[in-house]
Amino acid sequence: MNDNTTIGKMPTLIHAAALRTFCVRVFEKLNVASADAEITADVLVEANLRGVDSHGVDQLRRYVNGLQSGLMVPRPNEKTLRETATTALIDADAGLGQPASFRSMQRAIEKAEKSGIGFVTVRNSNHYGIAGYYAMMALQYDMIGISLTNANVSVVPTFGQRPMIGTNPISVAVPAGHQLPFVLDMATSTVAVGKITVAHRQGKPIPEGWAIDKTGAPVTDPGRVLDNRSQGRPGGVLPLGGVGELLGGHKGYGLAMLVEILSAVLPGAACLDATYPTAADGAPAPANLGHFFGAIRIDAFRPLTQFREEMDDVILRIKDSPKAAGADRIYIPGEKEFKEARHRSKNGIPLPAYTTTALQAIARTLRVTYDL
Amino acid sequence: MNDNTTIGKMPTLIHAAALRTFCVRVFEKLNVASADAEITADVLVEANLRGVDSHGVDQLRRYVNGLQSGLMVPRPNEKTLRETATTALIDADAGLGQPASFRSMQRAIEKAEKSGIGFVTVRNSNHYGIAGYYAMMALQYDMIGISLTNANVSVVPTFGQRPMIGTNPISVAVPAGHQLPFVLDMATSTVAVGKITVAHRQGKPIPEGWAIDKTGAPVTDPGRVLDNRSQGRPGGVLPLGGVGELLGGHKGYGLAMLVEILSAVLPGAACLDATYPTAADGAPAPANLGHFFGAIRIDAFRPLTQFREEMDDVILRIKDSPKAAGADRIYIPGEKEFKEARHRSKNGIPLPAYTTTALQAIARTLRVTYDL
Repeated sequence: MNDNTTIGKMPTLIHAAALRTFCVRVFEKLNVASADAEITADVLVEANLRGVDSHGVDQLRRYVNGLQSGLMVPRPNEKTLRETATTALIDADAGLGQPASFRSMQRAIEKAEKSGIGFVTVRNSNHYGIAGYYAMMALQYDMIGISLTNANVSVVPTFGQRPMIGTNPISVAVPAGHQLPFVLDMATSTVAVGKITVAHRQGKPIPEGWAIDKTGAPVTDPGRVLDNRSQGRPGGVLPLGGVGELLGGHKGYGLAMLVEILSAVLPGAACLDATYPTAADGAPAPANLGHFFGAIRIDAFRPLTQFREEMDDVILRIKDSPKAAGADRIYIPGEKEFKEARHRSKNGIPLPAYTTTALQAIARTLRVTYDL
Repeated sequence: MNDNTTIGKMPTLIHAAALRTFCVRVFEKLNVASADAEITADVLVEANLRGVDSHGVDQLRRYVNGLQSGLMVPRPNEKTLRETATTALIDADAGLGQPASFRSMQRAIEKAEKSGIGFVTVRNSNHYGIAGYYAMMALQYDMIGISLTNANVSVVPTFGQRPMIGTNPISVAVPAGHQLPFVLDMATSTVAVGKITVAHRQGKPIPEGWAIDKTGAPVTDPGRVLDNRSQGRPGGVLPLGGVGELLGGHKGYGLAMLVEILSAVLPGAACLDATYPTAADGAPAPANLGHFFGAIRIDAFRPLTQFREEMDDVILRIKDSPKAAGADRIYIPGEKEFKEARHRSKNGIPLPAYTTTALQAIARTLRVTYDL
């Protein structure tokens, strides 16, 4: 009955506000402006609240490293390179992805407010966290929100052998009436790399169909997938639809390429494997990731109340339809995450020991207070 | 050595122009205006040219039946219900989907020309053929084109038992430089229903992973899938990613729902299983399908020549990357179809005996000349 050991391995429940405050402290210590620190902390903690722990505070180390090495600029000089009533192109000056993305999505919403539609693309940015955060910003304005980003390569194109493209997520948020909003937030691969990292930390194998080695054979050891990825070896994550074309793998690959085009080719960010750039001397260079943000006014097409009612109707008809054998409910995209966020807002975010240990290490190195 | 039988079963090679002329004749005989007949014929034959035979002249019967029954209106009174500089909502008045879609995509392009972006949604329409036709219309204007439509239900949502959603395709066309354009044109299901119909006609089984029965077990007999569908029985086509959530089936289902929202909820068309409407007396009613068309000016974000060069670079880097064991090339979305179209434009479209027989039957019934 070694209770201590058991308790020591139980997740610690941390309130969102406390976790946010800790992250802000870390970013401010690294010379990030307060407003930007708040935004970045909020995006990270929102991922944990929604149960997307792979994109939550486990990522803090990535940003700390980036800011310490100088690859991420704490006080960037964001510039608008092109602008029309409906569009803009932003240079994020190698700053954190989150504040640049937050402001760019706000710009898209302002443009949509005046012109019906607003599209803002961003170059020279960094990892922006959960795609859904920005898409969901449109909901409070009764708009449809869109958020796309490219990412470091990890996905093998159909009939290819090497990872040539990122897990390139698509997020679209749509308001409903009494029902929860529709929030699609999906990697265009069978699985996000973060899920493989989580399996690795938990010492669990991954299912066949998530990743392949250089011969195209399935890999179920998550550590091997992550190693191959960090070493730039062949093999990698499969596009949604899996190997070859039989079950639609070429569709997942096509969607990933579409996201690459809209979020990186269109703004002129680094594309494909150029998202692991190196400077002339072989040292790492800034990532130059790209993003795409969009907002669409619903009432440009249809009265908002009608639209909301019909969204509720569509949602309920799907949810009320007969269930598969062994299933007791059908989910709408985003539903699980909203319910988890409600639960975790109230009860706290369960952080596993490896997360709290990592946060403590960051606090120690940076000499900021750890009070979680 | 029964050569006659063999020859009788060989596909007949028909030139695109002749096939187009025949289709125009059929539509005109059914009181469709010449301009609309030309557009509809062109969309159908373009599908055959691109090798998407499931959406080509095999579909002519569907439109003939619709026009003869009165469910499709030959000379509709298309109306613009709402309009801004960037958006429009069109009522297609139950006309053929193709001419309404062609004109709506033109409107989107005109709006994008002036305002950077143009989105046009359509309600009260019918089956519009290949989604890619309309997206590709943007290419000649150096724009990105988007085309989405909902469709009669055939896809089972994740954890559901009945088909509640269509195969709802996504098409996006993007110009390149010297390389062929990127043209994604994909059902959000593992496979389009047309592919199952083709397998059925050819007497071939379909792979496990395309469709399930009401217990969730795979169905490999295409006739059974089509029967279940036409009888409104449980079971149906799987979303991209397959059964459950393990390999991302919820993502395919989420994408299908996104297309339903943009192409049907937004314009106020019939949604989900209401796409098989019946009038009060139980007779079929017009389909009231919805579509979404978009055009985006590239030079609102980046000089066009730079964009074209980078598209070429991205395409070549993917194509030139190492190939999977047993594969000799990596395709870019749309590439196979462009090459097939080039080949078939020159050598003719191979129509199997069941297609020419069906076209002859249409010619006989309508008393139009059959000269293919």
